[in-house]
Amino acid sequence: MWGMIATWRMAHDGVLAAKALLEQQGSCQDAVETAIKAVEDYPFYKSVGYGGLPNEEGVLEMDAAFMDGDTFKIGAVAGIVDVENPISVARSLSEEKFNSFRIGQGAVAYALAEGFQPKEMLTPRAKTIWEKRKAEIAANNLDPYDGHDTVGVVALDEHQSMAAGTSSSGLFMKKSGRVGDSPLSGSGFYVDSEIGGAAATGLGEDLMKGCLSYEIVRLMGEGLAPQEACDQAVYDFEARLKKRYGKAGAFSLIALDKQGRWGVATNVEFTFSVATTKQEPAIFMATPGPEQTTVIEPITKEWLEAYEKRIKAPV
Amino acid sequence: MWGMIATWRMAHDGVLAAKALLEQQGSCQDAVETAIKAVEDYPFYKSVGYGGLPNEEGVLEMDAAFMDGDTFKIGAVAGIVDVENPISVARSLSEEKFNSFRIGQGAVAYALAEGFQPKEMLTPRAKTIWEKRKAEIAANNLDPYDGHDTVGVVALDEHQSMAAGTSSSGLFMKKSGRVGDSPLSGSGFYVDSEIGGAAATGLGEDLMKGCLSYEIVRLMGEGLAPQEACDQAVYDFEARLKKRYGKAGAFSLIALDKQGRWGVATNVEFTFSVATTKQEPAIFMATPGPEQTTVIEPITKEWLEAYEKRIKAPV
Repeated sequence: MWGMIATWRMAHDGVLAAKALLEQQGSCQDAVETAIKAVEDYPFYKSVGYGGLPNEEGVLEMDAAFMDGDTFKIGAVAGIVDVENPISVARSLSEEKFNSFRIGQGAVAYALAEGFQPKEMLTPRAKTIWEKRKAEIAANNLDPYDGHDTVGVVALDEHQSMAAGTSSSGLFMKKSGRVGDSPLSGSGFYVDSEIGGAAATGLGEDLMKGCLSYEIVRLMGEGLAPQEACDQAVYDFEARLKKRYGKAGAFSLIALDKQGRWGVATNVEFTFSVATTKQEPAIFMATPGPEQTTVIEPITKEWLEAYEKRIKAPV
Repeated sequence: MWGMIATWRMAHDGVLAAKALLEQQGSCQDAVETAIKAVEDYPFYKSVGYGGLPNEEGVLEMDAAFMDGDTFKIGAVAGIVDVENPISVARSLSEEKFNSFRIGQGAVAYALAEGFQPKEMLTPRAKTIWEKRKAEIAANNLDPYDGHDTVGVVALDEHQSMAAGTSSSGLFMKKSGRVGDSPLSGSGFYVDSEIGGAAATGLGEDLMKGCLSYEIVRLMGEGLAPQEACDQAVYDFEARLKKRYGKAGAFSLIALDKQGRWGVATNVEFTFSVATTKQEPAIFMATPGPEQTTVIEPITKEWLEAYEKRIKAPV
């Protein structure tokens, strides 16, 4: 039995690449890295890796994490700049007993010393989008923050091992050095091969108030199916946050258990990609349903075509 | 009813200062900041704030976080340099809806723009300790990493509000940009005024594998007393980590609930300070006991004198 679930439509090609590995007894660790690298490398995804949108100052600062569900090894980077694949750096860091979470220039120094490739990650297209947005914000006194689509992946392999990973350029127009939930254990991701794993996307500032990835894994450990665990953790927390903090940002969680069952919950329109031994790779759309449930439907051909057009539209 | 618990003997003077506030209807938020500032400001504590030991390159990089248990607001900094009180910067950041976790120069820029004081935080004494340690490591091929005593504080005030905070200069001789658990929600700290709060000290790389602060709060929410919650979460995780990762670093957790009851658990010799409406301020020593229990005893006059001598010994 193998399986993979990943956040957003952008993850789908990565899921297809990972499926090819997992079908041939490949490891979940390789599958997670492969899937996320595909998203990082694709220039038209604006919130992850190459082509990601920069911070307020025009610098593309990236966050990523990797967790091994067999050993609980975690590696993470935050505010890493101009390194080709943050997820690969995070995976490498997970092998370190000390200093496994590195930020800023310390993360860059580690990456280059370990032979990871330096690469100018800010594309001309991303720079143009940033320049236009700066002008719009100045002209219309807009709230600058928009877009925080992390790629989060959970994988199960035929050896019954599980792994999880995340990668993000964070909030568009974020302040220099802002970190979201993506590199934070328990908030952005968590995985235990004896139970299952979860990962998050959305407003990191709110996600870290709830430790939802940890909570979903814990609920699965108590016997809940992934969908039940996602629904309970996400909608309970959303209600609690609205009551206590006064509002709740957008967030969406995915989960996969050791049996290859999966679930998602979200308080916004949310696409995701999934493939398992039993299920052909597919992209779905999730929306919040009535009474703490989630409505999940296949995406339509029209939606996909509009998406392709939108991400490649002239800027 | 008010109460405060804090990690390590070093926190005791801060607890006394916070007690004076809490007794006069002061807020738990002010109490947490006051207690931690006292530790940050004292030059003879080598692992927090002014006088803290630097990273491998001789730079004192500090981590801190603040959480409000009423609203779940969180502010955090990592790798902040030469700013007087990281805890105050973290508390200020907790008021931000976006960009509430800042690292490195982004954190410094925020702090200075908000009027926090720049201060050279590396003392001549800390620099001397670092230089000697560098030479020892080189001469004897030693494992460089040593010392990771975070100050972590949880407070309850007469208004039934709770807050938590942490501050640390991290692992002595850490690599540039290394981040531990202290600024990470769920791992370094967590608090919910309707339940209780917890905070951690120890090897951050291992603490973030378990999200123990979140787990302890959760267990208290299920009805466990703070001591039961600490014992269960800490010793279960230690056993799981040894089985799955092969080893477990040092870690110690403290907890306080909304009734002012407290608990601690640890896998090493661990001192802490506590004061509540019912209990005069005191420093205790905790050690792991048999069958997932914790032995807690008052520290002796001899221990205290030896401690004073040790931290002020010529370098």
